Order: sequence, then structure tokens, then C-alpha cells
Amino acid sequence: MRNAEATKERILDAALAEFSAHGIAGARVDRIAQAARCNKNLIYIYFQDKETLFTTVLLKHLMRIHEEQPFTPDDLPGYAAKVFDWAMANPDLMRLIAWSALEKAKGPAERGATLDAKLAALAEAQHAGQVGTAFPPRFLLTAVLSLATAWSAAGPFGPSLDPKAAERPAALRESIIEAVRLLANAGKGAPSQRRSKKR
Amino acid sequence: MRNAEATKERILDAALAEFSAHGIAGARVDRIAQAARCNKNLIYIYFQDKETLFTTVLLKHLMRIHEEQPFTPDDLPGYAAKVFDWAMANPDLMRLIAWSALEKAKGPAERGATLDAKLAALAEAQHAGQVGTAFPPRFLLTAVLSLATAWSAAGPFGPSLDPKAAERPAALRESIIEAVRLLANAGKGAPSQRRSKKR
Repeated sequence: MRNAEATKERILDAALAEFSAHGIAGARVDRIAQAARCNKNLIYIYFQDKETLFTTVLLKHLMRIHEEQPFTPDDLPGYAAKVFDWAMANPDLMRLIAWSALEKAKGPAERGATLDAKLAALAEAQHAGQVGTAFPPRFLLTAVLSLATAWSAAGPFGPSLDPKAAERPAALRESIIEAVRLLANAGKGAPSQRRSKKR
Repeated sequence: MRNAEATKERILDAALAEFSAHGIAGARVDRIAQAARCNKNLIYIYFQDKETLFTTVLLKHLMRIHEEQPFTPDDLPGYAAKVFDWAMANPDLMRLIAWSALEKAKGPAERGATLDAKLAALAEAQHAGQVGTAFPPRFLLTAVLSLATAWSAAGPFGPSLDPKAAERPAALRESIIEAVRLLANAGKGAPSQRRSKKR
């Protein structure tokens, strides 16, 4: 059994590299098998088909992100900085996310329970006055993630508009922090419907 | 000759649909030929190879964007609103841009002379006090384009975080305008190195 687990891990590692480079349609299971030093049939036995393998790889790494990067609605600029650092350091996974969006992979990029929890936490932070109320939670979250990853391998514009961005991450991080600070503070102190009862 | 031009146009239209759906690697020249009702060899005669055809389609539409959407550095929020409307109305082309970034297509997404002109115009608007100086021109331009297209088919997060965005474009447009206004106004009135001579 330990051998099977090790093989599965090798397949998942090889799949990440292959999907990152070629996307779902362009990926070849033969190449994944070769890189993982296993029989091609084993991949189908373990992971059904190419699409399921893609979703498995993506989910595995997204779960890791959620663990490594706790969402901090009361510190959106700090969260954006962490997402930025992570996105610049993990181009393979950022490309996976972009392929997933383009190839409309089934399964979640960021959905369901995790997304709902983030939106609820953001709304709560707005009610508590930690985040301004100029923007709805869903807009804020999308804007923060889009800004923080705009220069990563998943950004459709950043890498071509600013190909040398990776050479000066500190300056870029500072600008992102400042931009997110402006968005998060907008409407702070403005009258909002506070909850009568604190939870 | 007019016949040849008409055939070329049909090929370019069919290629836009095929590349938008499948990307460069996934696109099939056979399908483009079939949709354009022409001989496959004609495509190679007119456009060399699949990559050149992709670049030709992308460039053709990017040039159209630049004509239809003049850059207005003195009104970045208005520019963002126009880019947003255009991006939501043209998912095919937004996907083309995203494929281009992922598949590292040669040739420009937004480079060279056009990009330099935009950056120079932005710097000029900062010197003239129309745009704040909190962010460098290259950051501002990338941030504006990323925010304005985050909910489009090219956004790696928007469509999954906010799948119903297209149903309420007015509210989303307002939020984007407000967000860009905050970025563009940041550092306005702050001391900056104004040019001694006005041009």
C-alpha cells in the first residue's frame, strides 16, 4: 500500500507539470505515465480519466493554499501581499487555475463552502467597521484576488504589460498593498446597517 | 481577388471561434477549413501555419480595440468602464487573449509602440496633476486593465467567484469605476516632480 501511495504522489506531481504546461486538452497521459515511471493504465485505474486527474491535482493544491493562506478579512492588504507572494512563487499552479477557467473544468476553482465562508467573513468585517462598505464583499474579494495575481502566470495582462515585474517584487508588493488598502478603507465610517446583536 | 479577400475573412472568423474554444494547441485547422468552407491547404497558403493564423486573428481584433477604445489617461474610470463593457460583450476575444498568455503565443498582446504610448500618456497625466502619483504608470495601467476584465471570460477568478456578474453589469460597472477612481486619485496633489516646461 505504501508503494501505491508513492506511485499516486508521483503521478500527481507529473500531472501538475504536464497540465501546467499544456492544459487539459493538450496534456498527454502517456507523458504523465512516463514522467511518473508507471504504467499508463494505472493512471486510469487510480484517477478514472484525464479530467478527473486534472481536478484531483487542482483540488489538492487549492486545499494546500487554503491551509497555508488563512483568509484575513480584517487585514485585506496583508492577505493580498501573501497571495501575491504565493502566486509569484507558484507559476505552475497559477497556470493550472487559468487553464481550469479557460477549459471550464468541472469542479471548483474557488466555490461552495470555502467561498461562502470568505464572503460571510468579509461581510462580518464590514459590519464590525474593519472594512469599508463602499464595495460589496463579492466585488472586494474578486478585486483583491485579481490585483494580487495580475502579475502572476495566471494574469492575462500583467506578464505581457510588465514582463520584468518578477525582478522587483518588493515595489510591486508595496503598490498592491496600497491599492488594496484604498479599496478596503473606502466607505469606512460611513453609515451602514450594523447588526443590533453582536455575534 | 475580391473572392480571395472574402475567403480570408471567412477563415479569420472561423479561426476566432475555433481558437476561442480550444486555444492554439487544441485548435484544428480541419475544423477551421470546414467552418470557412474552404480547402485546408488554402489556410496554409494564406497564413503559413496555425500559430501565424492565431497571431493574425488576435492582432486584427486588438487593432480594432485600440481604434474603438481610445485610451483616456485623464479619465481612467471612464476608460475602465469602456474596457469592462467591451470585455463583457466580447468573450471570444477575451478568451483569445487569455489563451495567448497561457500558450505564450509569439507576438504582442499589448506591447511595443502602443504600450509605450499609453505609459507615456499616463506619466504625462500624472505630471499634469490629472492622475495621482501614488502608483507608477505601469502598475496603474495593469491594475486598471486587470480590474476592468476580472469578470470577463479572461479573468481567472471573476467568472467562478461571481458567476452571475453578467446579470448585473450596471452595479459591477459602478464598482469598477469607483475602484479605479480611488487608484487614479491616490497621491493627487502630493508633491511630485513637475516638469519646468509645459509641452
